[in-house]
Amino acid sequence: MNEPDLVAWLRSRAGKHRDIVLGIGDDCAIMRPRAGEDLLFTTDPLIEGVHFKADLPAAAIGERALARSLSDIAAMGGEPRFCLVSLAVGCDRDERWVKTFFQGLIKLAKRTQTVLAGGDLSHDERTHADVMVCGAVPRGKALRRDGARLGDALYVSGRLGKGWQRPIQPRLALGKILRGRATSCIDLSDGLSLDLRRLCLASEVAAEVEHVPTAKDSSLERALHGGEDYELLFTIPAGKRAPPGTTRIGTMVRGVAGSVRYQGSPLEPRGYDHFREPVE
Amino acid sequence: MNEPDLVAWLRSRAGKHRDIVLGIGDDCAIMRPRAGEDLLFTTDPLIEGVHFKADLPAAAIGERALARSLSDIAAMGGEPRFCLVSLAVGCDRDERWVKTFFQGLIKLAKRTQTVLAGGDLSHDERTHADVMVCGAVPRGKALRRDGARLGDALYVSGRLGKGWQRPIQPRLALGKILRGRATSCIDLSDGLSLDLRRLCLASEVAAEVEHVPTAKDSSLERALHGGEDYELLFTIPAGKRAPPGTTRIGTMVRGVAGSVRYQGSPLEPRGYDHFREPVE
Repeated sequence: MNEPDLVAWLRSRAGKHRDIVLGIGDDCAIMRPRAGEDLLFTTDPLIEGVHFKADLPAAAIGERALARSLSDIAAMGGEPRFCLVSLAVGCDRDERWVKTFFQGLIKLAKRTQTVLAGGDLSHDERTHADVMVCGAVPRGKALRRDGARLGDALYVSGRLGKGWQRPIQPRLALGKILRGRATSCIDLSDGLSLDLRRLCLASEVAAEVEHVPTAKDSSLERALHGGEDYELLFTIPAGKRAPPGTTRIGTMVRGVAGSVRYQGSPLEPRGYDHFREPVE
Repeated sequence: MNEPDLVAWLRSRAGKHRDIVLGIGDDCAIMRPRAGEDLLFTTDPLIEGVHFKADLPAAAIGERALARSLSDIAAMGGEPRFCLVSLAVGCDRDERWVKTFFQGLIKLAKRTQTVLAGGDLSHDERTHADVMVCGAVPRGKALRRDGARLGDALYVSGRLGKGWQRPIQPRLALGKILRGRATSCIDLSDGLSLDLRRLCLASEVAAEVEHVPTAKDSSLERALHGGEDYELLFTIPAGKRAPPGTTRIGTMVRGVAGSVRYQGSPLEPRGYDHFREPVE
């Protein structure tokens, strides 16, 4: 594998954006921010044996590595601008694998107008990648976790419990629509029970869940506690209309901050926590 | 190890900056850019067994993880603003280790006014970290690799061949001084012979090196080809004065773009390339 050739190959496919003054090929990428915008930053790792199985196709790994971070941008109501990709190539992978990884990543990047502005290539025993994405919102318009209020209606996009290893569709269009309409928003990466608890803790409220839209061939258990759904969970003031394709699942209520009930019973957070055992 | 407690512990130590509207604890960090500035972005991995030995103290690993990226910001003439840290904790490390890692990182972050604005915690068999740093320069003032011109004098900071596992001192103050004075700049991470070739390729010139300041107890071989020096290599127009503490080592000359000569003989790039074998 030849690093300069690979970098040249990536440069020719990285995309362009008026904000990116300088992309791949220097010590840093240079961005010229637009007036009146706030910038959003997130980074997510994708580790072989932890976040994906070794036999997942290279293009799907590349796509997933970017999609996880794009989902965070969607949850804040942002539009993606550029990404940095730090890829450590496992010793069982060759140049063809690396190119296919980036083809998968770049295909999603083009679809979402995300420039590949830089990163790093290194090696390790097993493959892992970190993808940082920068997004933008009009100043002060980012959706946050801490804005939910008592009486707000709780909504979710799509159906839950889809589970692992399926392609992620970052809800970027929905996130933009929710700007100025939702009072809070989070993406469901670690399971509804854990992510809803996080939203409630940040907003210092409790939540009552009545109903959860469950994916075909899934179970209530997986819809409540399984991770990797990458749908948006958000709150809307009582009486306001939510966008089509979303489902009301409950209400923000008075109670111990962070506590969640499902059909009247306490719902313990059992979603994915990296320092505990994963759910099946 | 308890993730919410660890996140709360990090939040209380993350630092503050007027640009950072929202730091650790949401899906993304939010930054409000200042008018008239360009932003710089870089990410660098630090992998156990590749970039550091397993027995390096935790605080030194944390410091090094940030210092590598800060060196890239220095090379562009930037001042650091914030960082995102994605840490995968090896299965042989405990909570105490993680906290000591972050203590080392945060100590350097405070010294350089870099806010810890977010990131991710996960686990893997062996430890690895990716640190993304955002820096800023006045609009259009970033130092790049591609500005060296025929006849420019070639300089380096400090002494070369210091080698691995020593604390990195990112040359941030020098980088700022070089804005508007240097025509090109790069940081020496992979060895003079390889990094000078990169600068020459980007600037489409050749270089003649006459003399290299060698670190105490080092060798010419290590000064020319060893990596991990993290000094700045830069060019200054003929007749202009360079900052104190820097040494003129050669001249940019006509020739095949990217070719480098040392005392009249071709100097092959033998620095560190992740897809070849490392130098000793």
